[in-house]
Amino acid sequence: MNGSATSRPPLSPTARSTLTRSKERARGDRADLDAVLDAGLVCHLGVLLGGAPVVLPTIYGRDGDTLYLHGSTGAGNLRAAIAGAVSVAVTLVDGVVYARSAMHFSMNFRSAVVHGRAVEIIDPATRLHALEVITEHAAPGAWSRVRLPNKKELAATMVLALDLTEASVKVRTGGPNDEPADIENGGVWAGVLPVRQVWGDPVASADLEPDIAVPADVLDRAAPDLVPVR
Amino acid sequence: MNGSATSRPPLSPTARSTLTRSKERARGDRADLDAVLDAGLVCHLGVLLGGAPVVLPTIYGRDGDTLYLHGSTGAGNLRAAIAGAVSVAVTLVDGVVYARSAMHFSMNFRSAVVHGRAVEIIDPATRLHALEVITEHAAPGAWSRVRLPNKKELAATMVLALDLTEASVKVRTGGPNDEPADIENGGVWAGVLPVRQVWGDPVASADLEPDIAVPADVLDRAAPDLVPVR
Repeated sequence: MNGSATSRPPLSPTARSTLTRSKERARGDRADLDAVLDAGLVCHLGVLLGGAPVVLPTIYGRDGDTLYLHGSTGAGNLRAAIAGAVSVAVTLVDGVVYARSAMHFSMNFRSAVVHGRAVEIIDPATRLHALEVITEHAAPGAWSRVRLPNKKELAATMVLALDLTEASVKVRTGGPNDEPADIENGGVWAGVLPVRQVWGDPVASADLEPDIAVPADVLDRAAPDLVPVR
Repeated sequence: MNGSATSRPPLSPTARSTLTRSKERARGDRADLDAVLDAGLVCHLGVLLGGAPVVLPTIYGRDGDTLYLHGSTGAGNLRAAIAGAVSVAVTLVDGVVYARSAMHFSMNFRSAVVHGRAVEIIDPATRLHALEVITEHAAPGAWSRVRLPNKKELAATMVLALDLTEASVKVRTGGPNDEPADIENGGVWAGVLPVRQVWGDPVASADLEPDIAVPADVLDRAAPDLVPVR
């Protein structure tokens, strides 16, 4: 989802959102953060549960400077998320970096890490909007053609919002950073083996009536010739 | 990496490693855990930093019932990892589940979440073995043909081990779990849009001598015809 981009400050440079290692990989613009968050399919949510960190994958959506999460009202991890600080990471792996020496092997990636406090959304209109944002992130174009949440479903769902004010973005591209001596010695292949996510062909549900065509929003996303996601 | 599989107990059923939601997605065998960990490229490490959870992507490797992590001795997050409890998640997204109603949209995925205490590996031989395991996880077959870590590199590297004793594995497959009324009403497409990671063609480093061939371990992994990773 795209939000208003007017007068948005750069990413917050707090101690934990400032890279101390490999600083050249840091990106400081909100557009960089948006790009990584919008390209991901799932995030990893870190909460504090019984004094220990717990990391869990979950779907999400972004609208402007807000990240939305949702889940069952019975989910202990979401309750833990609103009880204290959270951290949310979205990572896209773009390749394995093959170096001339073992310690220079690496990954090309784009990652965003957000820190903050998640708040539960109570307002019904905002809740419904957040659910639309999350659904449209997972399945762009689907919200307008499916049955929307009913009262019972809404009552069983917890919706959280996290401000995107404190975040760091890291991007690694290119080949290995080999030692000059190893490059001079030569004889070892060095480069990148790219990796990417691709969509397959849509698979109809076993209980689907035979006369229902694949909708345009699914068909446009699917790529029988394996065109990359981005 | 494959480790000894003799007399390994099932996954630990502690409170935080026991699923309370969607129990039918839980997998309890160590082989399920191994399969997810071995299929991932990066994990998300959750540590406690200044009282708040911090989630970061990093590479890893598995040998038997041990997960190895590494990083710079100057990395605050690794120091935080050995100071308290950690959580490590590996997630593979297999598809977007399109439902007849908004609240039943979902993801097909395989995920493993490990909880425990990471310990720093000090013994030189175990450290080198761990680095081999991590490198071979990122780039199978590469360790034996590249320059191995020297004293200076080893001194600058912190190696951590995490026992795979407390873990949970979740796998979701198949179509949407739509409401009977929505299925009966019909008229809405339901199914799965698969997604997978594929390797591209190897890209030689700009500073590589022209006469170096792509090694077999890279060539065998690369797939010009976009064969899926798994």
